Amino acid sequence: MRALVYQGPGECTWDTVPDPVIQEPTDAVVRVGTTTICGSDLHILAGELPEVKPGTVLGHEAVGEVTEVGSEVHSVRPGDEVIVSCVSACGRCSFCRENAYGQCRGGGGWILGNSVNGTQAEFVRVPFADLSTHRRPGSLTREDAVLLAEVLPTAYEVGVRNGQVGPGDTVVVVGAGPIGLAAVLTARLFSPRRTIAVDLSPSRLEAAARLGADAAELPGRMISDLAEGPGADVAIEAAGTPESFVLCTQAVRPGGHIANIGMHGKPATLHLEALWSKNVTISTGQVDTFSAPWLLGMVASGRLDISQLITHTFGLHQMEEAYDVFSRGAETGALKVALHR
Amino acid sequence: MRALVYQGPGECTWDTVPDPVIQEPTDAVVRVGTTTICGSDLHILAGELPEVKPGTVLGHEAVGEVTEVGSEVHSVRPGDEVIVSCVSACGRCSFCRENAYGQCRGGGGWILGNSVNGTQAEFVRVPFADLSTHRRPGSLTREDAVLLAEVLPTAYEVGVRNGQVGPGDTVVVVGAGPIGLAAVLTARLFSPRRTIAVDLSPSRLEAAARLGADAAELPGRMISDLAEGPGADVAIEAAGTPESFVLCTQAVRPGGHIANIGMHGKPATLHLEALWSKNVTISTGQVDTFSAPWLLGMVASGRLDISQLITHTFGLHQMEEAYDVFSRGAETGALKVALHR
Repeated sequence: MRALVYQGPGECTWDTVPDPVIQEPTDAVVRVGTTTICGSDLHILAGELPEVKPGTVLGHEAVGEVTEVGSEVHSVRPGDEVIVSCVSACGRCSFCRENAYGQCRGGGGWILGNSVNGTQAEFVRVPFADLSTHRRPGSLTREDAVLLAEVLPTAYEVGVRNGQVGPGDTVVVVGAGPIGLAAVLTARLFSPRRTIAVDLSPSRLEAAARLGADAAELPGRMISDLAEGPGADVAIEAAGTPESFVLCTQAVRPGGHIANIGMHGKPATLHLEALWSKNVTISTGQVDTFSAPWLLGMVASGRLDISQLITHTFGLHQMEEAYDVFSRGAETGALKVALHR
Repeated sequence: MRALVYQGPGECTWDTVPDPVIQEPTDAVVRVGTTTICGSDLHILAGELPEVKPGTVLGHEAVGEVTEVGSEVHSVRPGDEVIVSCVSACGRCSFCRENAYGQCRGGGGWILGNSVNGTQAEFVRVPFADLSTHRRPGSLTREDAVLLAEVLPTAYEVGVRNGQVGPGDTVVVVGAGPIGLAAVLTARLFSPRRTIAVDLSPSRLEAAARLGADAAELPGRMISDLAEGPGADVAIEAAGTPESFVLCTQAVRPGGHIANIGMHGKPATLHLEALWSKNVTISTGQVDTFSAPWLLGMVASGRLDISQLITHTFGLHQMEEAYDVFSRGAETGALKVALHR
């Protein structure tokens, strides 16, 4: 089959590799119908995740058809259309038993396109298929469905839920890329008073306004805007830089929450000399995807419109072009891209 | 009267100053029976809190007798024996209405010995006396009572409660001074599996073992001790240094809590490159003292033995000697000191 193979920092190639096969009785093999690219793929290419070995097929989000299952797979069978979750879950370790699938110690967690071959390919082996796939209802488009593999659960679980967004809150989201915008969309389910998206890119600020953020501002404007009141109830970090994290600590009110979603390659400065007495709560997290079935229901029933998050579509074999457009999203206006078989 | 007056960085004097008088109808004046010294007084003396003006009487913890009340004070009257809380609460602002007295925007918060004259004196004016004092039951010694003014609520609210200590938890407390040891004592109310006190001072490690910590260790030993398992469920920072904060982030398990109690004069490094995916929660906080009545009941009923936290007693007029012994606690073995009229 053809697949995008990581060759080491700065390099990946659309290559011919062996088709995946069932290796464990809990595996499924899925023929990829739609996949996408994530900011973390760019972090891998930047060499920031040295644990990813050259030769690995990248990607951890997909929708497709099950072609084969191992003897211990009971939830799906060949012919089923499924969402392949970015997180695999053994279901048996202490973390999985508390729905903390992202921290799975039984061989799962974020392994696809990381420690095992991923979804940017014609076929993918899905370990622990029972807990790591969700059936795609016919009412859900493939493009909406592929956003349930990672983007939407990440924004909701790690941003909105960890940040404890509630009715009447002022919510700042720093970073208006796909994850940040998905955080704006899922925050709005909780009737905040005001959502403020912050970014440096004009096209991303426009996208934020289009998707329903009450304000879309540059960092400096956000700070002076908030200075009139006690600050944000919740600040969501969705950019993954030290500066954006510090901006969140400046935005939050006493007693407020900072929810870090961003993947960071460097430390940030924690201004404890200002924060020690402010009663703030800071959370970090890798998505667990426990919320995917609930989010799927919200999207399928029309309560959550995520149709604007995918801005560009490609054929699966245009992978390298798609990476180029996605990686220059601040210029190209690309949010999430979809690659279809 | 005589009082300890802050003269600017590095200097304070036991001086004669005017007796305090009722200034607002919500004030009380209390004749100090017992007071104590806090680590934050040392931070003020080190010049780390420039908002404290020279001429201010220091101290924010006391037990004593009410001698006079303003016309709008209803909870206490002259002759009552009270605990003077370190935090004053207007009771009317949005923060007070949510029990966040430490963040009071109506003129309260931590003001005693900070923006108004404090308790290291023969008399003290107590603003907002209704919510800022607690009657001392006869069954409670003055020495136990003075610990309810700040030490015990701080350790409990900002450490144990914010850290969400629960049954079966492994709890690390970094910094085995009075606040850290009070955190060990109040954590034990929740039946943790193991409490580990960490300090550099042999005398403080001895004190931690004496007070019931399951282990009392140097930082390096703690790290190798925890390396055998997933880490601490809760790490409580009670030292107020960048290094002790980082140590907490190294100790905590995925999904665990870091509760910062320490007052910090400098930023710390937040290793987001390691923490972003660990699902940790970090809380900061200034005490609100909402828990003081509950803690008072626990101590008065014998469920919480805090009698070992005060190691040295002095007369009120031995203030400067008491500061010397307290500030060199790691050498002198002093934990909390009590100064009695």
